[in-house]
Amino acid sequence: MDRLAEPSAPGARQPRESRAGDLDLADGASADAQRRLAAAAVECFAEHGFHGTTTRAIANAAGMSSAGLYIHHSSKEQLLYRISLHGHQVALEVITAASTSADPTERLTAMMRAFVRHHARHHTTARVLNYELSALSPEHQQEVFTIRKAIDRLLLDVIEAGVARGQFHTSSPRMTLVALVSLTIDVARWYRDDLPWTPEQIADHFGELALRMVGARDLGAAAHTSGPSPA
Amino acid sequence: MDRLAEPSAPGARQPRESRAGDLDLADGASADAQRRLAAAAVECFAEHGFHGTTTRAIANAAGMSSAGLYIHHSSKEQLLYRISLHGHQVALEVITAASTSADPTERLTAMMRAFVRHHARHHTTARVLNYELSALSPEHQQEVFTIRKAIDRLLLDVIEAGVARGQFHTSSPRMTLVALVSLTIDVARWYRDDLPWTPEQIADHFGELALRMVGARDLGAAAHTSGPSPA
Repeated sequence: MDRLAEPSAPGARQPRESRAGDLDLADGASADAQRRLAAAAVECFAEHGFHGTTTRAIANAAGMSSAGLYIHHSSKEQLLYRISLHGHQVALEVITAASTSADPTERLTAMMRAFVRHHARHHTTARVLNYELSALSPEHQQEVFTIRKAIDRLLLDVIEAGVARGQFHTSSPRMTLVALVSLTIDVARWYRDDLPWTPEQIADHFGELALRMVGARDLGAAAHTSGPSPA
Repeated sequence: MDRLAEPSAPGARQPRESRAGDLDLADGASADAQRRLAAAAVECFAEHGFHGTTTRAIANAAGMSSAGLYIHHSSKEQLLYRISLHGHQVALEVITAASTSADPTERLTAMMRAFVRHHARHHTTARVLNYELSALSPEHQQEVFTIRKAIDRLLLDVIEAGVARGQFHTSSPRMTLVALVSLTIDVARWYRDDLPWTPEQIADHFGELALRMVGARDLGAAAHTSGPSPA
């Protein structure tokens, strides 16, 4: 199961003294129900889209009644929001954790590899996170966009650091950033489990492509995975 | 939106006159109605997704009744199919027309520029073409996939030609193909009319990125748009 499909039980984050019927009161059984609902919702949203999914379909897939769903989530949008928020938080953690090296070439390679691998492994959730944003309320959209901007910022930082050091050469760091993000996000659209490539192989190749895209001069250092370097 | 809310009176799905809905036989008034319906459907599908769009919403947006829609299209899927088929045929024409040079470097640059520019200019339609494929019937999906494969083949051909001539250097032409297609398709997701870049500027930059991605040795010939070459 997709790790992102299992938002940590919101009940665990909050004190127990909230209102009755509130998510925050979730005990163990409730947390399990929430996980099942989130997993079911991800599958439904990924296959039929948010608007093409009824709350009844989600409840059915989770093995509960529609009334049972509303105990845990006040609306379908609320469910999408929790999935989106958690998924984006995890994505930011993944790319931040890979963003440690002081060397821009190494850092960009590690970030792209980690991010591409994450999108391939969790492609079903990633599809929901990236293609259902317009279904969120304006406030929830803003919250998620803030996280997306933080991810973009991390990637732009490493591109600009590489350019400043003379390691990268690009006429437009921002357009190149968009292209790097495209490579990653689009994995969620095309990835299938029956492909001849593992997430790791895709991550390696795309890490190498990223270095080429930013015009990294010294491709030998990080392009250690496969094939001849381009220059 | 609940799919069950869709006004899908089964009896109304058949065309009232056997050929009245056929694009090819359409007279002036009918052709105009079809264009209005297709334009309305693209807007609705792009904003709410196929499943989130009712036939009533499309008819309303086109300024006609639901019954009027069914005169021209036997179902919502039929409308999506016509949009998809035509859109993919045009996309294939656009990339084929750019695929003339015998030189792989020039050819890839021209193809990527034309294809990216096309996706930016027609980003709303491109969104429907690329993100609503699963809503097509299996037969219609197959028909569209055949065109998509032809587009992929054109791009793979030029990558392989470049490798064979020693102009391109990549350890995986197929994974690089997927990445090039990603750059293009994802434009449909992120492009907005209020961006600081014109479709032409994006096409130029992405054409340059494509050459870098395939490891083109001589970037001077085609990378004439901006900035320093990467090697």
